[in-house]
Amino acid sequence: MAELVEERTAERSPQGAVEAVIASLSSDFGDRLATGRAIREQHANTVTWLANEAPDAVVFAESTEDVQKVVRACAKYGVPVIAFGTGSSLEGQVNAPLGGISIDLSRMNRVVSVHMEDLDCTVEPGVTRKQLNEHLRDLGLFFPIDPGADASLGGMASTRASGTNAVRYGTMRENVIALTAVLANGEIITTARRARKSSAGYDLTRLLIGAEGTLGIITSLTLKLHGIPEAISAGICGFPTIRSACDTVIATIQSGISVARIELLDEVQVRASNAYSKLSLAEQPTLFVEFHGTEAGVAEQAERFGEIAAEYGGGAFDWATKPEERSKLWQARHDAYWAALPLRPGAKALATDVCVPLSRLAECVDETKRDIEEMGLIAPIVGHVGDGNFHTMPLIMMDDPMEVTRVKAFVGRLTERALAMGGTSTGEHGVGQGKRKYMEAEHGGAALDAMRAIKQALDPQNIMNPAKILP
Amino acid sequence: MAELVEERTAERSPQGAVEAVIASLSSDFGDRLATGRAIREQHANTVTWLANEAPDAVVFAESTEDVQKVVRACAKYGVPVIAFGTGSSLEGQVNAPLGGISIDLSRMNRVVSVHMEDLDCTVEPGVTRKQLNEHLRDLGLFFPIDPGADASLGGMASTRASGTNAVRYGTMRENVIALTAVLANGEIITTARRARKSSAGYDLTRLLIGAEGTLGIITSLTLKLHGIPEAISAGICGFPTIRSACDTVIATIQSGISVARIELLDEVQVRASNAYSKLSLAEQPTLFVEFHGTEAGVAEQAERFGEIAAEYGGGAFDWATKPEERSKLWQARHDAYWAALPLRPGAKALATDVCVPLSRLAECVDETKRDIEEMGLIAPIVGHVGDGNFHTMPLIMMDDPMEVTRVKAFVGRLTERALAMGGTSTGEHGVGQGKRKYMEAEHGGAALDAMRAIKQALDPQNIMNPAKILP
Repeated sequence: MAELVEERTAERSPQGAVEAVIASLSSDFGDRLATGRAIREQHANTVTWLANEAPDAVVFAESTEDVQKVVRACAKYGVPVIAFGTGSSLEGQVNAPLGGISIDLSRMNRVVSVHMEDLDCTVEPGVTRKQLNEHLRDLGLFFPIDPGADASLGGMASTRASGTNAVRYGTMRENVIALTAVLANGEIITTARRARKSSAGYDLTRLLIGAEGTLGIITSLTLKLHGIPEAISAGICGFPTIRSACDTVIATIQSGISVARIELLDEVQVRASNAYSKLSLAEQPTLFVEFHGTEAGVAEQAERFGEIAAEYGGGAFDWATKPEERSKLWQARHDAYWAALPLRPGAKALATDVCVPLSRLAECVDETKRDIEEMGLIAPIVGHVGDGNFHTMPLIMMDDPMEVTRVKAFVGRLTERALAMGGTSTGEHGVGQGKRKYMEAEHGGAALDAMRAIKQALDPQNIMNPAKILP
Repeated sequence: MAELVEERTAERSPQGAVEAVIASLSSDFGDRLATGRAIREQHANTVTWLANEAPDAVVFAESTEDVQKVVRACAKYGVPVIAFGTGSSLEGQVNAPLGGISIDLSRMNRVVSVHMEDLDCTVEPGVTRKQLNEHLRDLGLFFPIDPGADASLGGMASTRASGTNAVRYGTMRENVIALTAVLANGEIITTARRARKSSAGYDLTRLLIGAEGTLGIITSLTLKLHGIPEAISAGICGFPTIRSACDTVIATIQSGISVARIELLDEVQVRASNAYSKLSLAEQPTLFVEFHGTEAGVAEQAERFGEIAAEYGGGAFDWATKPEERSKLWQARHDAYWAALPLRPGAKALATDVCVPLSRLAECVDETKRDIEEMGLIAPIVGHVGDGNFHTMPLIMMDDPMEVTRVKAFVGRLTERALAMGGTSTGEHGVGQGKRKYMEAEHGGAALDAMRAIKQALDPQNIMNPAKILP
């Protein structure tokens, strides 16, 4: 596995420091501190091809003050501290390559307040998106960001997550009003007030969103909510080629149709999802779409979309108007990752995550498909194509070094292609360990230096989730 | 005037340093460097009650490299450098309290590219919003952020501007995809790529937006564009009380009606605007509203809004369906500031800018109205009330120290009231010099320290627009 892990220059803390911090936390937290191997490994990367690098101990925090205690202890001894939500991140964000203390935030799972009249709520970071939406349903409200996994909201903010609804509702960047966080110096800050907008100084909210716990640990979030739409209509449409599906997406967005979700599955993914999710779709490139609005508005949008799809050779629309049909559809989409794995039993999956300007989407997907074929990989494609974001999932036999090398080359080529098109190496998964190597090419040295200066200013000891994001 | 200006601890650069930087820039820029008093004063604060504090010289930049040259020269000699767009900021953002060099960016006014298919464009920072929209009109696109003044887009990003359309389209924060900027160390960075979303590291774009040139000088912007709506419908509705108008706004937003603009004018502003803009509105609290969408969608929204307004006692709607009627309406709204001044000939206007959670809007406006009456001020109220943001404009005789003191007390009380309601001291004007005194109360010491650490990290010499934002 060694060759898959990023090179790193930073070193582990001296064993004495680690022992001292564990002793100190043990007296504070008692049986809420765990050092058993199984629990430590559960708190490191578990779902991707990256190696599992366990922390030295796990603390189960129950309050902002708990988090502050842990950070202060880690600061005192110069030991890394890594926030953990549900562990569903895909780039090794929760790994502890230099050891240290994992703060498990899953017990901080209270919905603190809901302001119906202001369409906002305040939650602890361990609340998951499904838990929040359960809580909100009877109030007629919902939180739209949906990365597929039932991730924690703190983790979603930290990786700047988005997912299927982002084309209409934005990403975590647009849907967080304010954060409370513990900084490396142990201070607790609130990044903004509850007003919808403000011009009062530097945007600390947006600085922490996407920082993956490297600048501070989020201990509460104030989120924008939306009314559950009066009408929702979803449907499936097959296309003769990936290109015709992508061109339909481009034309839809350009025409100003306010689509709520527009998701691509290629024919490989459709085959996998048919088997895993018991669907019976034709094995061809397919769009899953959804519209939100009034009855009349949804009908109008759906009709316009149907016309565009037909223009590009799309087949007849299969509408899912009942809630349970829609749920089955989106569950299948969310299970794409799990559906893909059985395509190659024993393989690990690597989820790529490039995002390109919409005008380049068809070309980028086409060239990537060609690469997959030429390199002899099995790699289904799914995508939040309304944003120009798509994932391929090469299935890798990790015990075949040649294949691992081939997949690495494939990912490198894909990333270069996306960057050359004005795109990014990661639309929503974040950098973690897996994408650090692309940051120089993506941002350039001067911008990276600015990021390093910020990191150095806010975390001079480099204890907050070290060896992540910045190469 | 002295008592109106913030206390400051930083000092002016030694005269020798200023002379050296001017000599150095003079050889680079020739007659694009100006040191005449009139031109220097034009490049300091001109429109508000704050004193005019002129820079030592003005350089007319024509390229990113020009800006880089000026910043490098200023860095070499430790002399302040202040970006200037159109000078329409309201909190002394372009003042040079410690002297230094003003970089006039108005000649950097090229629309570099428009990507119709991606709904984005790249512009130089001196392009104004009206200039951009002129450029886009024939393409069927528009840029929605509209702060009233024909501000430069670089300036709008730097103050995190918003305005009438923000309730639907967001603020500059949501509508900038990427920036190019010159940092204090003279390095040129690009903050992001052209993809619609990214999770690749720290959000330098959002860090520069609202930083008012204290962290870097923006030299190009990539902006989101929108299709010109198929149908636009605007109208005016009078209300018996401020409260009934505010309650209508709250109910409208809560009901999920996608209003594009919803603006309040109180009866004092209506009287002023009737005179200045040749309107003939009843002198009562009035909402200006606008809907964007398809013909059917706009009709549906307008009907629902009308029902809500009627419920709260709103009068009959006066619809402006022709483009020229709409233009007259919004021009009158934009001219509110200029319309207010003649209410008290010889007075200066101070535009306040609090923004509160929507549920507190009616209460906040009501209490503020009462304060205005009790303190015997003339202060019309206008507001982007869909966001909870409103402005009062006390008209002040600057030669009456008692009145100045009274107005300062009024603004202090207003700000405290907004903060106590979970609001902010500035929804869209920014901090500049005028609001520095409120930053501690708004953010708390720990968050302010984090902002100071970022400023120190990126501008260790404190040359970028010093004595702004951070107290």
